[in-house]
Amino acid sequence: MRATVMYAAGDVRIEDVPDARIVKPTDAVVRVTRACICGSDLWPYKSKPAAEQGQRMGHEFIGVVEETGSEVSTVKKGDVVVAPFAFSDGSCEFCAEGLQTSCVNGGFWGTGDVDGGQGEAVRVPHADGTLFVLPVGEDDALMPSLLTLSDVYGTGHHAALGARVAPGRIVAVVGDGAVGLCGVLAAKRLGAEQIIILGRHQDRTDIAREFGATDVVAERGDEAADRVRELTGGHGAHSVLECVGLEESFLTAMRIARPGGAVGRVGVPQTPAIPGNRPAFSHNITIGGGVAPARAYIEELLPDILEGRVNPGRVFDSTVDLDGVPAGYRAMDDREAIKVLVRP
Amino acid sequence: MRATVMYAAGDVRIEDVPDARIVKPTDAVVRVTRACICGSDLWPYKSKPAAEQGQRMGHEFIGVVEETGSEVSTVKKGDVVVAPFAFSDGSCEFCAEGLQTSCVNGGFWGTGDVDGGQGEAVRVPHADGTLFVLPVGEDDALMPSLLTLSDVYGTGHHAALGARVAPGRIVAVVGDGAVGLCGVLAAKRLGAEQIIILGRHQDRTDIAREFGATDVVAERGDEAADRVRELTGGHGAHSVLECVGLEESFLTAMRIARPGGAVGRVGVPQTPAIPGNRPAFSHNITIGGGVAPARAYIEELLPDILEGRVNPGRVFDSTVDLDGVPAGYRAMDDREAIKVLVRP
Repeated sequence: MRATVMYAAGDVRIEDVPDARIVKPTDAVVRVTRACICGSDLWPYKSKPAAEQGQRMGHEFIGVVEETGSEVSTVKKGDVVVAPFAFSDGSCEFCAEGLQTSCVNGGFWGTGDVDGGQGEAVRVPHADGTLFVLPVGEDDALMPSLLTLSDVYGTGHHAALGARVAPGRIVAVVGDGAVGLCGVLAAKRLGAEQIIILGRHQDRTDIAREFGATDVVAERGDEAADRVRELTGGHGAHSVLECVGLEESFLTAMRIARPGGAVGRVGVPQTPAIPGNRPAFSHNITIGGGVAPARAYIEELLPDILEGRVNPGRVFDSTVDLDGVPAGYRAMDDREAIKVLVRP
Repeated sequence: MRATVMYAAGDVRIEDVPDARIVKPTDAVVRVTRACICGSDLWPYKSKPAAEQGQRMGHEFIGVVEETGSEVSTVKKGDVVVAPFAFSDGSCEFCAEGLQTSCVNGGFWGTGDVDGGQGEAVRVPHADGTLFVLPVGEDDALMPSLLTLSDVYGTGHHAALGARVAPGRIVAVVGDGAVGLCGVLAAKRLGAEQIIILGRHQDRTDIAREFGATDVVAERGDEAADRVRELTGGHGAHSVLECVGLEESFLTAMRIARPGGAVGRVGVPQTPAIPGNRPAFSHNITIGGGVAPARAYIEELLPDILEGRVNPGRVFDSTVDLDGVPAGYRAMDDREAIKVLVRP
């Protein structure tokens, strides 16, 4: 079968790889019908040292179950399923708590002998715990939005929960990438009263406004913090969603949080330490979030998508086939695309 | 009147200073009957650059109201009162939320023209919002425990809340100073099932055991993390109280927290950034806490003290008069005393 392999920064190839097949009785094989490229894929795309052994890429996909192992009971051949960006057994104590990213038997796509999502098919470990059956056909018009359940919408929701978004709260979202946009949508859904997005790309902030943002702040650094304070009666936002992961964005998040507020962070950390220790201490700012247990949120987030109340699939502004994936990486890295959908 | 003034690291003096007196109609003058030296006073004691203008010290005190301004209505001459370590107006939006340390008209003892607590008397700004009247006489036997309401017990309680201690949770406390010990007490009071204290001074860990600690870990660094995992079934503590503020202690706190757990931090930050960004992200560890709104907790914590169910005053193992304060700083800095009570 064919799949995406990254060999070095900027070097993404589509190659023949061994076919996905059942290895363990808890596995399923899923033919991928939709996948996508994640903002987090851009970190290795910018920095990965060259290696002889490439890395299989992609951790967000929807597909059709082709085959199941003998111990799989909740999905069957022909089911249309969405996979979250981590696999999990669904039965350990962390899965029971809804923290599937810490599953004691879990892991991430494209690591070890596990396939990546940007390919024709995937062997899914722990299929019962991992896969979620969607009540739609494989070419349903809602596919882009359903695909966001694998990561980006769940991650935005996780940021909102980590930032303690609740009805009436003032929310600020740092980052206008697909996760930040989904963070706006999640905050709106959770009842935020005012939602400020910090971003400087109008095509993106326009989507943020569609998703519920009430204010756009294009400034950065000190000026952004001043502007957010102006917009919030002087004290900052109750809830700040950090959707980037860079030192500067995290520091901005800390500075625009209201005393007693919370920063929900989902941007993959690019620094070993969290900046702003002293202001966070002085102002009692709670830092929540982390790698999102997207699996935990699918059931909660699905109905609004099925019933058309939200349309997180709007974050996809480009579609490619498998051969177009390398160009898709380039487009996202050059900020020509917000998020690229892949139809293998 | 006489009061404590610090001029440089290691240079603490008792000096004549202007008498405390009513300046604003919302002030009260309190004659100090009990004060103490705080672990946080040791940071400047170790590092303060020499200055001609000394700094007034002390932020924890109990005393008797001597005089009140014309607008003060909730305390009167003769009342025995405890002051939290920050003054606050009691009426702003942050005070209403129980975050008096962020009061828009508040501040800290010993800054600007505000007296410190380690002296004969204090002018108390915003007396109505700041002072809490105690239903005891000025020499009540419970004074040491009541004095901990000004900071150390409230701070331990804040750490426990920030770490989301709740019935049945496994708790670890990093630091065996007075705050760490009070953190143990607070965790026990909030229903923690297992309480592990990390500390290597047996006189202190003995008090921790009295306060409810079930396990003592004397190791540090990697070995401490291994030991805590052993004691907790392999995954770490749900709630970790960081009661030191150093980079190493914070990193230990991050490493012994269970995935999905929380670190409640009250140690005054000694580093500009919070270490452990990546493990905190991977394991979804929430970082809560900060400078404790001790004022908010007095009413809740008082009854257990008055009724003898808890005895946080056990953290005082030395008592001095005002002239003994410089020696008290030395004793705490040399770890000869856990916490020094001052009777001016």
